Amino acid sequence: MIAETPTPPYFAVIFTSVRTEGDHGYAEMADRMLELAHHQDGFLGVESARNEIGITVSYWRDLESIHKWRDHVEHSIARDKGRKEWYQSFKTRIAKVDRDYGFERE
Amino acid sequence: MIAETPTPPYFAVIFTSVRTEGDHGYAEMADRMLELAHHQDGFLGVESARNEIGITVSYWRDLESIHKWRDHVEHSIARDKGRKEWYQSFKTRIAKVDRDYGFERE
Repeated sequence: MIAETPTPPYFAVIFTSVRTEGDHGYAEMADRMLELAHHQDGFLGVESARNEIGITVSYWRDLESIHKWRDHVEHSIARDKGRKEWYQSFKTRIAKVDRDYGFERE
Repeated sequence: MIAETPTPPYFAVIFTSVRTEGDHGYAEMADRMLELAHHQDGFLGVESARNEIGITVSYWRDLESIHKWRDHVEHSIARDKGRKEWYQSFKTRIAKVDRDYGFERE
């Protein structure tokens, strides 16, 4: 679903990835990371889609909450496994959202 | 593919959407918009994925190039059709990318 974020400014972590073949525990880890992220202080929401590439955008109140999530022990272990097994390549971009607008069909 | 963007800072337009049923000329328009965007001054790259929701992130040199793309006549017509036909809902977020890092398997 489209994340219900507050009025900007807030921050976005844009994570784009290409997977390796096979699951290797990836789906379970991804679910667990989503659950963990939801409980982090400063977490505002997340959007995710995948076909040829995967794009996950998570939204955060401030850079401090992004850094705390980066340093979370389970998340660090998952990132290591990502480099070893799950991802062919990825790119992470940290961005500040200054403006947003939306549309919802009646 | 993962976009090959330059060293930050640069800008991202994060467009998240839920489609209506059926194509109604959507795929053709999406291809045309991608082709047009690639020819815009300041365009740096684009990433796109869709399953339940669609996420398209386009990258730009500066806000000026984003505004010019927003005001492009064909793009404006496509946005109008998006509201009338193609999208159940969407959200557009304009963000400044301050930091990025990546990984590529050997």
